[in-house]
This record gives sequence, structure tokens and C-alpha cells, in this order.
Amino acid sequence: MILEVIEKKKRGESLSQKEIREIVNGYLSGEIPDYQFSSFLMAVYFRGMEREEVCFLIDAYIESGKTFDFSHLPTPKIDKHSTGGVGDKTSLILAPAVASCGIRVPMLTGRGLGHTGGTADKLESIPGFRAELSFEEIKRGVEEIGCVMATTTPEIVPADRKIYALRSATGTVDSIPLIVASILSKKLAEGIDGLVLDVKVGRGAFMKTVEDARKLAIELVEVGKLKGLKVVALLTDMNVPLGRAVGNAIEVIEAVDTLKGEGPPDLTEVTHALIKEMLGLGGFAHPEVCIDEIFPSGKAFAKFDEMVRFQDGRLDELHLPYEPLEITADRDGVVEDIDAYLIGLASVYAGAGRLRMEDEVDYGAGIYLMKHLGDEVKKGDTLALLYTRKDPKQPEELIKRAYKIGNKAKERKLIIERIS
Amino acid sequence: MILEVIEKKKRGESLSQKEIREIVNGYLSGEIPDYQFSSFLMAVYFRGMEREEVCFLIDAYIESGKTFDFSHLPTPKIDKHSTGGVGDKTSLILAPAVASCGIRVPMLTGRGLGHTGGTADKLESIPGFRAELSFEEIKRGVEEIGCVMATTTPEIVPADRKIYALRSATGTVDSIPLIVASILSKKLAEGIDGLVLDVKVGRGAFMKTVEDARKLAIELVEVGKLKGLKVVALLTDMNVPLGRAVGNAIEVIEAVDTLKGEGPPDLTEVTHALIKEMLGLGGFAHPEVCIDEIFPSGKAFAKFDEMVRFQDGRLDELHLPYEPLEITADRDGVVEDIDAYLIGLASVYAGAGRLRMEDEVDYGAGIYLMKHLGDEVKKGDTLALLYTRKDPKQPEELIKRAYKIGNKAKERKLIIERIS
Repeated sequence: MILEVIEKKKRGESLSQKEIREIVNGYLSGEIPDYQFSSFLMAVYFRGMEREEVCFLIDAYIESGKTFDFSHLPTPKIDKHSTGGVGDKTSLILAPAVASCGIRVPMLTGRGLGHTGGTADKLESIPGFRAELSFEEIKRGVEEIGCVMATTTPEIVPADRKIYALRSATGTVDSIPLIVASILSKKLAEGIDGLVLDVKVGRGAFMKTVEDARKLAIELVEVGKLKGLKVVALLTDMNVPLGRAVGNAIEVIEAVDTLKGEGPPDLTEVTHALIKEMLGLGGFAHPEVCIDEIFPSGKAFAKFDEMVRFQDGRLDELHLPYEPLEITADRDGVVEDIDAYLIGLASVYAGAGRLRMEDEVDYGAGIYLMKHLGDEVKKGDTLALLYTRKDPKQPEELIKRAYKIGNKAKERKLIIERIS
Repeated sequence: MILEVIEKKKRGESLSQKEIREIVNGYLSGEIPDYQFSSFLMAVYFRGMEREEVCFLIDAYIESGKTFDFSHLPTPKIDKHSTGGVGDKTSLILAPAVASCGIRVPMLTGRGLGHTGGTADKLESIPGFRAELSFEEIKRGVEEIGCVMATTTPEIVPADRKIYALRSATGTVDSIPLIVASILSKKLAEGIDGLVLDVKVGRGAFMKTVEDARKLAIELVEVGKLKGLKVVALLTDMNVPLGRAVGNAIEVIEAVDTLKGEGPPDLTEVTHALIKEMLGLGGFAHPEVCIDEIFPSGKAFAKFDEMVRFQDGRLDELHLPYEPLEITADRDGVVEDIDAYLIGLASVYAGAGRLRMEDEVDYGAGIYLMKHLGDEVKKGDTLALLYTRKDPKQPEELIKRAYKIGNKAKERKLIIERIS
């Protein structure tokens, strides 16, 4: 059977729901071996999938495990997904912020790999915090607190876990239908009504060009709609790190500042834009009114604090454990550019991220950008602080290479496009 | 490393000799798992390979095992390879015929699968015949007799054996660079100077159209030349079975008739054309003179007999063990067409072939086409004889469907094109 399906896909034909269900189930049961499924995935990489086929794939993924059902809760259930970037701590801010407006946010999140960080790792820098909740704990958190941020449990979309591992070992990660199925199946399993997508674009993102990002965003939005979700996507800039903090503990501290209304302007702008979309999907006619209220009033931070405590975190014990190294400017000028990819890589080499899934994360490691885009610098000024327990040579060099000091800062458009 | 090679091939880039050698060796040593190699093969299916890359692949294949060295023998070493057809017993005739002219033919051959037969199976229908010779026996046969026909031993191109098994399980058989590497690596391992390719075209062949067959033939010829071989390819018709016999013992009997100069005209024409090319590659200025001599003189048959005895066969004990069933015409007319694919399939269902590699072959089973293309028939005349110990219903129906009786036979051009 699988050979016929491979041949069909090789010819560029569409697969039926029955065919997709059978090969996914066959792979999960072990009946179809890895080597046949990976060859199928490569054929999908080259031939693509119709949106209807992606829906069938999502169905097969979801049917492989348990799903949440929050239909007994009268409030809207809205989540956000980011395709990943450098310094991207928006989830930490917007989940409690939106929950403080009365919307449920059952956020399943992931760990970092490569130059981009993961929300679960960042939160685990809070002493005691458990990102790995049980299915029942996630359910209870959403019911009692209004939001949780937890890793996917083994019973949620196990098909994606097994297939994603195979994809990352066989060069079949960068296939839009497979990406869409992977993202949307997990989000649909959360039992949500609406989803806001933050599709990052640029050097520090998975999608390097606006064209590629737009293509992915359109597929996510259109397939999401076919699956009955309300979906909006924002294309946001990831050429330059978002905010000033890159790492784990250091990003939580910046997120807390932003929750208190004292965050850096770029992070605040992107986060508020995403919150506005989430509230919009949740039925708020004037979301900006709510946004203007929750930060100064302390409501957004209070919800974060409540969630952290629900997940056994002790926020008051969070601190940066060691002294930073100062990276200084070697000339006068204006910060023209900061390469997000190089900063992301520097943060991994500093110990804050993973090159392979089995690497250990150093929660205290990270980078703080003292000078950001457009800032004036004098020779000898501190550009960035580097927190690391490793040999600082490599991250230090990467940070220096990331900064471009010239005469005039580049224009930066944070919100590039809205797709709905 | 393998992931980088997969990514390179996904982008359509060429691989270096080092890269190809490393992944083939990595796969053979077990360091690279099946699922990564199959995903690489599928990327090759879609992106193809430059001829230089195919040469690198052939080198890696050949380096995986032992090769024959017949350079101490002063006579030319020439072989033939057929892409497979129905009733194709040309190898049985031309190897001894060419050897009787003083050329060495170290022919490694295969078993049948699907609707096409295999030379090794056919020969094994001779009581006692051993197609599975050892490396040393093959060497001795070529030295002493001038030709052998044996299956590939485990020490010859083991890479192809392992990779072919993976290809057939992952939908990556029909990739021209992979086909070319598979065929030429085994032929080069024979230690030959020249190779004649019989690329079959039509319903009963792997290549259904002249365009596809030409494409394959050109790649085989050009890559063969790059590897230092003298190569000629003939595109020959395989819309209709070659000769009248389809099966194993029954084909050997027809081959013996042809070796004695009493074969059917179509088989004789194709075989002589191939022999002419082989003798030409072997340096014969007037090969037709030799051809005119070896059959009537009995030399060609004597060489076949000698080879069969070297491989422990007892040709005098060969016979068809059971009575045939007669398939009769249901109308008057002329045989317009006989579908080679349906006849090939009928022969498999009769027991003469394999649907899966583990199936047992019934050497006595087969089909004899009493009426061939252009023959006049009366209603009730015997069209074909069916030899089978199985339920004859399915093969009988297939044979009936294969015959088309009308007013006028189709033109049949046996030798379609010559590529060198």
C-alpha cells in the first residue's frame, strides 16, 4: 500500500483521506518502516500537498492522540504560535495578558533548538517552574487560571512527535505542508477557537524572505480556516533580535518588565500587535482599550505571577547568577544593524541554547544588548553584556560581528504584513 | 554529513566524489540508517545526477566489493545487458555464440521478477545446472570455456545489492542515474572491455516509450564511455513477446533451436543484431562472416553445451514435464497483435515467474505461442499452449486477452534505433 502511495505522490497526485490515514497509522504502528516513510516525506517535499490533503494529514495526526475539550467554558479559547526567532519572548507576555482580559490561552509550547530559543526553556529558568505538566494539569490550569504554558504531553499528537523526529533526521523539515500539519495539529488539539500566527521573517528566522514567509502564512491561515479555526497571521521582522535580552532567565526578566509596562519599545510593539489580534479573534470590538488597561493596572503581570505559581515557579528567586563580560565598541557611530542570526548563535555558544536536542541548557547564560538599533555609541562604550560560564571567545566574536556601527540606523518595520 | 548531502541534492547541486563515497560507505557500514539513505535516494529521484556524479556512484559501488581481472587473457572481453522483456532468451544464445568466435563473455545475470523472466532461472530449468557459481568458478569458466552465465556472487558490488533492496522498498527504482549505476557497476566488475545494451521498448518492457528508452540508453552509453568502456545500445521492440516460447525450460529449448540455426525469425534477427555489435566491439571487421559460420557449423551450440556441462547442467535431461492446455481462436482472421505484458503476466500466473522475490519458480510452466504476429487463424485453431500446474483460469484469460485477431498484422520494427 505505502509503495502505491509513494508512487502517487511521486507523480504529483493528491492522496485520499483513507490513504493518508492508513500510512500515518501504519507508520505509528510500526507496520510501515522508517525508510519507507522518509522516502514518502521526501516525495511530499518535492511534490507538495493540496490544502485538502494537509487537512487529512492534520486529522490523522490529531486522531493519533488525545485532545483537549474546553467547550464547557463559555469564554473564547485563543492561542498564538510563533515560527521562532531570537529574543522572542512575546509568548511569556501575551498569554497572561490575554488571559487577564478573560480569554483562555491553553498554550502548548516547545524547547529551543539551533539559534532560536524555546518558551519552555525560558520559563524553566524560574526556580521550581514545571513546563512539563500532565494532561490533567494543563486542563485544570486553563480552567482555574485561564492560561498555562506547557510542553506537549506524550498523549497529545504523538504522530507529530514521531514524524518530526524522522523529518529532522532526513532533510524533510522545510516542507510547507508538513510544517503546516505539524503546527496546526498541535494547536487544534488544544481545543481552541482562534489562533494568531507570528511568522518571523529575516536572518534570525526560519523564513529568510517575505515571499517565503508569506507563502507559509497563507497556507497556515487557509488550512486553519478549512479546519474551522479563526486565524490571523502577522509577518514580523526577525533580522534584528526582539528586545534587548537573549537567553533564558534574562528573557524572563525582560518579559516581566514588559508585563509591567516597562519593556523595550520594539518588543512592546510586536507583543501589543499580537495581543490585539488575539483579543480581536476573541470578539473584542475595541481591544486597544483593554491593552491600555491591563499593563498599567498590574493585571497582566498578576496573571503571569498566578500562572507561574500554578506551575510551581518561584519568580522572586529568579536572578542572573554570574557577572557579565562587557563587549565594547571599537569605533564611534550609530548602531546600524544587529544580526539576529549571529546573536542567536552567540547565545547558543554561551550555553543558553542547544545545537542538538540532547544538549543541556544553562539558564543563566545569555546576552543583553546595551545598545540597540539607532543608538549612538562612542568607542569603548559597552555594546552588549555576555553572560556565560563557557569559553567566551566564540560568542564574543559572534556578538562583535553581529553589530554594525556606521553613520545612520536602518529603517526597521516591525509589523510587515497582516494575512487573514 | 548525510544531512548536508541530502540538502545539497534537494537544492539540485552536484555531489563530490568524496561526498558520494562517504555516504555509500556510511550506508554499507550501518553508520547511515536506512531511513536517511532512502530519503537521499528520493531526492536523487527528483533532482537527478550529473554523469560525473553517476561515475562517482559507480566507483563507490565497485569499491564495495571484488572485481574480476581478465587482463592476462589476450582476447577481448565483451558482455551484453538487457533491460528485460518477455520471451527474451537472447543471452542464452549470444553468450556461447560470441564465445565460439573467440571472445570472452563473463556474464553476470539475474533472476526474474514481475512479468519479465531472468536468465538464471531459465538456465536452472536444465537439470543439475548451477547458476550460483563461486567467484573462483566464474573466473575459471571464463578462462577455460570462454563464457559463463552466473548470478552475482555476494562479494561482487555488495553496495548495489543492499541499495537495490532499499530502492525496491521505497519507490526509488525508476531513477535513471540509479539504474545506470546499478547496471554499469556490475558490468564493470566483470572486467570487460565492451558492453552491448539491449534496451527493450514497449508494453512488455520497463521503458514503455521510445523517448524514455532512448534517454536511458544515452545515459548508459555516455556514462559507460566515461568509465572507459566501449558501449553500443540497441533499442529493440518489446510490445510483442520475442520468439514463441515464454517460461523457463520452454525458453531454453527455443534457445537451443536458435543456436542450431532453427529459431523463430524475430528472435534470430534480434540475437544476430546483438552478436554483430558484440563482435564489432571485439574488433571484428566483418562480424557477419562469423555469424554465418557459427550456427550452421554447430560451433555456437557446442559452446553452449560446454558451458552447461561446466556448470553441471545435463541438457539431455531437459524436457517439458506436463501436457499443455490448448488456447483456441474464437474467430477467423490474422494475428494482429500479442500483448507482451499480458503474456508475461500469464506466464507468472502459470508459475514460471515471481510476483515477489521469495516466490518459487516452476521451471516446467510456460506458454508457447503457436500463432505469432501475421499468422492466419481459423476459428478453433490453437493459438497458444499453456503449461501449468496451477489453476489455468487466470493465465488462460490473460493469453486470450493478449491476442488480437483482425484483418491485417501490425508492422513490427524489431531494431528501433542504435545508439553509440
